[in-house]
Amino acid sequence: MIKKKSLSELRMDLVSGDWVIIATGRARRPEAFAEKKRNKEAVSSKYCPFCQPKILDKAVLKYDQSDGSWFVFSMPNDFPAFSKGDKLNERKEGPNRIMDGIGYQEVVVTADHEKQIAQFSKKEIKMVVDTYQGRYLNLMRNDFVKYISIFHNHGEEAGASIAHPHSQIIAIPVLDPDLKGSLDGAENYYRNNGKCVYCTMIDWEIKDGRRVIYKNDKFVVLCPFASQVSFEVRVYPKDHKAYFEEITEKEKEFFVDALQQALSRVYKGLKDPAYNFYIHTAPCDKQGYERYHWHLNILPKTSVWAGFELGAGIEISTIEPEKAAEFLRKIK
Amino acid sequence: MIKKKSLSELRMDLVSGDWVIIATGRARRPEAFAEKKRNKEAVSSKYCPFCQPKILDKAVLKYDQSDGSWFVFSMPNDFPAFSKGDKLNERKEGPNRIMDGIGYQEVVVTADHEKQIAQFSKKEIKMVVDTYQGRYLNLMRNDFVKYISIFHNHGEEAGASIAHPHSQIIAIPVLDPDLKGSLDGAENYYRNNGKCVYCTMIDWEIKDGRRVIYKNDKFVVLCPFASQVSFEVRVYPKDHKAYFEEITEKEKEFFVDALQQALSRVYKGLKDPAYNFYIHTAPCDKQGYERYHWHLNILPKTSVWAGFELGAGIEISTIEPEKAAEFLRKIK
Repeated sequence: MIKKKSLSELRMDLVSGDWVIIATGRARRPEAFAEKKRNKEAVSSKYCPFCQPKILDKAVLKYDQSDGSWFVFSMPNDFPAFSKGDKLNERKEGPNRIMDGIGYQEVVVTADHEKQIAQFSKKEIKMVVDTYQGRYLNLMRNDFVKYISIFHNHGEEAGASIAHPHSQIIAIPVLDPDLKGSLDGAENYYRNNGKCVYCTMIDWEIKDGRRVIYKNDKFVVLCPFASQVSFEVRVYPKDHKAYFEEITEKEKEFFVDALQQALSRVYKGLKDPAYNFYIHTAPCDKQGYERYHWHLNILPKTSVWAGFELGAGIEISTIEPEKAAEFLRKIK
Repeated sequence: MIKKKSLSELRMDLVSGDWVIIATGRARRPEAFAEKKRNKEAVSSKYCPFCQPKILDKAVLKYDQSDGSWFVFSMPNDFPAFSKGDKLNERKEGPNRIMDGIGYQEVVVTADHEKQIAQFSKKEIKMVVDTYQGRYLNLMRNDFVKYISIFHNHGEEAGASIAHPHSQIIAIPVLDPDLKGSLDGAENYYRNNGKCVYCTMIDWEIKDGRRVIYKNDKFVVLCPFASQVSFEVRVYPKDHKAYFEEITEKEKEFFVDALQQALSRVYKGLKDPAYNFYIHTAPCDKQGYERYHWHLNILPKTSVWAGFELGAGIEISTIEPEKAAEFLRKIK
């Protein structure tokens, strides 16, 4: 019996105004939640879904190596939390707002089952970034898409359910609440100080130097002054730019260099930790977010601190960002 | 050589205005972050810090069983992220704000090394809640304390670094950013609709019934309409009350009954999952938060979804709250 797949829903929290996703398309029996959830079979390449030859049929964008074999491609996620659609249906249920969970969800897969981005050459990282940008530019054309999130989970502790290295791209009809906070913060800072809050921070960090890990002509890699977790690393363009997708070919060279430095130092210094990275960029809903400043965040998973963060919403870092940066700066 | 313990710092994120904690008092060598972090020794009661007879010397509040043996006590955390202090020192560093990380951090320990709150009798749960309230009332007397967080981590996946059941109480000089959002949301809703947003939601949920798991005269247990995670459960007082610490003896009876129902159904239905629960209550900085409505949240850990939440700040629930509530409602 084929189970009819129902559409996911976006539901608004009545108090905060934030949207959550009720991903009914993935629904399991309630009893299944009590079972052990880790899927070990995908660890071996034999059973890896991304190592099957027919996987390439699903590619929507692909880059090849110089020998003609594929290196990276993007394809629709087989188990999306969002479904394709062209109209945004909204309705009320009692005092609550619900929206159809429409959107796009893609997976960016690299060829090698083991080798991770931190071990890639610049040329290889460039192809991954080209894929991110290419798909971003394509997906943002859909009218209902307001925000596109690009992220990469490495390691089981960081939520990577499939071991084979891959990134995800999600295009959705609502704004991320954290980003909303940052957009407002950047706008307010500009109103009060007449300059970009990120540019202010970057200028000061480069002058101060203690939290800088690496810099080139166009990008700086640093541990943020108010780090959310131990060894948090961010990659910022030095020149003010709100939108990642507008990165030029020239800038991309420097970004790829900075990203390689950031990821390889975390990989070597912390001995291949689990981590998440994500690109924070202004929404694509054409509302004009010129005060924002795009960047990439890397959050290594060095410990489990669930309760305090959940309870008080305040993050704890157990190493000073200055010491973390000093340590990562020395890694060759 | 005794390592000098330095004070923790609260640092403000320049963009969002949220505070993070740099807990330097716990600092380890940078290299130590690459080592495996799980501490297995505390699993056996022989090495359990909470099972040592001298632990009772540290108690600041204690409740005994009818046979005279202790059942629960609260004591200062041996490894606090916050240090005691009476003055709030703030300073600037470049464009950034820093505050001394002063505050109080206590651990609420129950006697049995194995038995968890979900397995307690009502009388036992009552003693735990009495301890929470007693310490809350005491800690809020400190002038600089603005917010007190009470939370409980159960299971390693939920961040419980010590297996022996215990809760934590943290009294801090800044507001939790999530709570700030809820306080604003409740205020706005009241201004626009002339009533409490939580009361509106609770009335509607009780009338609708599909997400209600249990209710008594004074409290309701439900899966929220916009659940943040699968099987999220909340316990709300039916009557409007902003402050947990003002709970009366009569109300406490009903709260204890509701909490027992909530925790034991999660425990039985999901077969002893890891979870966090926390009490969300109005700040104690005497600013008057009458529009808020205190409650308790339970967040079971049924899967790891790190990347998407981190990247987009939007949570995914993979079971409809209606189905989760139906399942938990049926548990005896």
